[in-house]
Amino acid sequence: MTTALEAALAHVDAHLDQSVERLKTLVAIKSISTDPAYAGEVRRAADWLAAEIGALGFAASVRATPGHPVVIGHDQSAPGPHVLFYAHYDVQPVDPLNLWNTDPFTATLVTGADGEQQIVGRGTSDDKGQLLTFVEACRAWKAANGGLPLKVSLIFEGEEEIGGKSLPGFLASARDELGVADIALVCDTDLWNATTPAIVTMLRGLVGEEIEITCASHDLHSGMYGNAARNPIQVLADIIASLRNPDGSVAIAGFYDDVAELPAEIAALWKRLPYDEAAFLKGAGLTTPAGEKGRSVLEQTRSRPTCEINGITGGYTGDGFKTVIPAKASAKISFRLVSGMDPAKIRAAFRRHVEDRLPPDASVSFREHGGSPAVSVPTDGPFLRKAAGALAEEWGNEAALIGSGGSIPVAGDFKRQLGLDTLLIGFAREDDRIHSPNEKYNLSSFHKGIRSWVRILAALATD
Amino acid sequence: MTTALEAALAHVDAHLDQSVERLKTLVAIKSISTDPAYAGEVRRAADWLAAEIGALGFAASVRATPGHPVVIGHDQSAPGPHVLFYAHYDVQPVDPLNLWNTDPFTATLVTGADGEQQIVGRGTSDDKGQLLTFVEACRAWKAANGGLPLKVSLIFEGEEEIGGKSLPGFLASARDELGVADIALVCDTDLWNATTPAIVTMLRGLVGEEIEITCASHDLHSGMYGNAARNPIQVLADIIASLRNPDGSVAIAGFYDDVAELPAEIAALWKRLPYDEAAFLKGAGLTTPAGEKGRSVLEQTRSRPTCEINGITGGYTGDGFKTVIPAKASAKISFRLVSGMDPAKIRAAFRRHVEDRLPPDASVSFREHGGSPAVSVPTDGPFLRKAAGALAEEWGNEAALIGSGGSIPVAGDFKRQLGLDTLLIGFAREDDRIHSPNEKYNLSSFHKGIRSWVRILAALATD
Repeated sequence: MTTALEAALAHVDAHLDQSVERLKTLVAIKSISTDPAYAGEVRRAADWLAAEIGALGFAASVRATPGHPVVIGHDQSAPGPHVLFYAHYDVQPVDPLNLWNTDPFTATLVTGADGEQQIVGRGTSDDKGQLLTFVEACRAWKAANGGLPLKVSLIFEGEEEIGGKSLPGFLASARDELGVADIALVCDTDLWNATTPAIVTMLRGLVGEEIEITCASHDLHSGMYGNAARNPIQVLADIIASLRNPDGSVAIAGFYDDVAELPAEIAALWKRLPYDEAAFLKGAGLTTPAGEKGRSVLEQTRSRPTCEINGITGGYTGDGFKTVIPAKASAKISFRLVSGMDPAKIRAAFRRHVEDRLPPDASVSFREHGGSPAVSVPTDGPFLRKAAGALAEEWGNEAALIGSGGSIPVAGDFKRQLGLDTLLIGFAREDDRIHSPNEKYNLSSFHKGIRSWVRILAALATD
Repeated sequence: MTTALEAALAHVDAHLDQSVERLKTLVAIKSISTDPAYAGEVRRAADWLAAEIGALGFAASVRATPGHPVVIGHDQSAPGPHVLFYAHYDVQPVDPLNLWNTDPFTATLVTGADGEQQIVGRGTSDDKGQLLTFVEACRAWKAANGGLPLKVSLIFEGEEEIGGKSLPGFLASARDELGVADIALVCDTDLWNATTPAIVTMLRGLVGEEIEITCASHDLHSGMYGNAARNPIQVLADIIASLRNPDGSVAIAGFYDDVAELPAEIAALWKRLPYDEAAFLKGAGLTTPAGEKGRSVLEQTRSRPTCEINGITGGYTGDGFKTVIPAKASAKISFRLVSGMDPAKIRAAFRRHVEDRLPPDASVSFREHGGSPAVSVPTDGPFLRKAAGALAEEWGNEAALIGSGGSIPVAGDFKRQLGLDTLLIGFAREDDRIHSPNEKYNLSSFHKGIRSWVRILAALATD
């Protein structure tokens, strides 16, 4: 006799093509949250999702926020525990467009160099593909068995890529509605490797800063003013150069004050994990870790704080040449924070570092682009144990309990605003080129991701 | 009885409005030479000039080059010496457009803070206004007296703002036609101050370089790769920071090897010139010379070599924030050279400096944007003496014999290709904001500039 779980898994396998078609439809909506020109597209993505889950039988709605809307769905018809699933439907910009091999908004199936089928397009991995793994798992349960095995609420955010500013306020206002869940599930993370699932238990925080250096009152001719006039590009370069020590560490005073070493048992676990530093770097065309000397790549990218320059501009940047000394130059700089670091303290230390290095005739203005602390998730609860078991059944390998390099502030928001712990489970691969041209999601990530959630829903429903 | 000179000067005064109208027409032609999108406009400016001088009775033609065309005119009907007048009709780009108070291509008369009438628009000063001072002087001579007092040839270039690459070849091919002149006159320089004319006798050279740093094979997510992946913006900033020593001098090995100190008598002359360092800097909103400590602003901007960053770009520079580690970052860097410095040697020293500082996983590509040595003009010839006398009559003050901060490679080209010395005489003011938003030319520069040429033509025609 076929169990409910087997029936739902069989439905997933039999209807994968339709699931991919729905992903293509969602990718085609250009929901770039950072660019005001695309606000209508972000809204359209929210509407499409609400309609989609509404058709599945969820009580669905699009909720206004001060920024982009949140999509909410509820199906509480089953007995048993109550999960709140989160993913985001907004995406990063697609420039530089000329580096894409296919249209970024036309999800395209291609065969990768490793022979695997890939779905290429902006958001296929981050996070539209991951979002739909859960929706399609719910669809399979309902189609195969007439309903879900437990209570499910859904929350889809449209501002994750721009710092998720509206979410904490929204969660606070929806505490009665969403805080009744028992556990939050978030799908915005990676597999450990092609065959090893992962549950993320450490998330770094993020501080974003934009600085603009101003010297002269207007652009100057370098032949008339060169040498004598302070050049803001030179000032900015001097400041950026001062941010890192020759040993690769961050040179801001006090930056590492609140950074703890990894607990010995976690450090030991990470050493045992299958991980190929050289292969990781090679995937990006690199050979040599650039961060703190003596730290492994795993530490540098997952348990150590960063300081990265994400953008810089000043003077004439078009074709040809213009002998100008510009009045202004600016840079976007971000910091990844680990447990214990205070975003406000790091921001203040950075600003002091810059201000202390301003030469005569140079002034600076700062602009804040989000700030969130790191989050740790307990590793010993029953939900985590059940979810890890379900993942092991699907993948044939035990799930890795790891730290994530990226920032997923929603886990902290769920804890603070709703009192909920979060299980961070995702199926992306580290070579998915998220935020970059030719972003992709392996078809196997999508397929086995849906199957994983089908199993996790069954596992969490058990006593 | 009215002399021919007095008649020509009276004609200038009586027809200034029409002269300004012609400048407005020329400014309206968007002859931005660096941007291929404006090639048709550059051509249109050449055609307009040829028609204009043709109507004045010059044998006029537009000559093709591998780049933008050259306009040539001849009127050799008078006896006496033969002058070859040069100016350029191409202009710099106008971005950032939002900083202009008026349309850059609509020359607009405004009253400056000092109460002086100004003609505001791209090229009003550099170099369309200066070009027309000479054309209008010829017009006045012809209108008042039926002809010019000496032989005049005209050459107008369309590539000065992009390094003047085609000019040397053109001059070489036109040696028989143009080398018969006795002296070249170039109008692309400044007055010493509002009431003191100047003849430039030292011109710095220019080397332009563009460098692109490449690290990863594609843009990376800073949360996944931060610390571990080499960041090309950081590499570029480190390199730019290494170009200047803390004392403001250029740190490239050998940079000053061929730089001589000013001859004692010229240094003494410069100390006597009326010059207000603080006022010069204040005009740009600055207070403190940024170059070599212990060198005056006059030295820093006119007799010392420079290294300036003219543009920089890398990563995400749009609205909002994107947590990317870009694959590439690039900068445009220029060097002003003084007498004795070899452009090829400086370019090579710069490239070696960069290559020596590349960390692992960073590569560089270089792109050349022009190179020309500095030029010195003899200060003791009879033409210079006569021109200086004519300027003194018009302005009421002796002409300053000075060095120019900018690069005017055509003076070197005239010497090398045609064997001609050059008198560099111009009427721009140092606050003209050339190459910047709200470029202007004082109406007095235009009016007294035309009158100055009327006098110089008369003076050079005498035995």
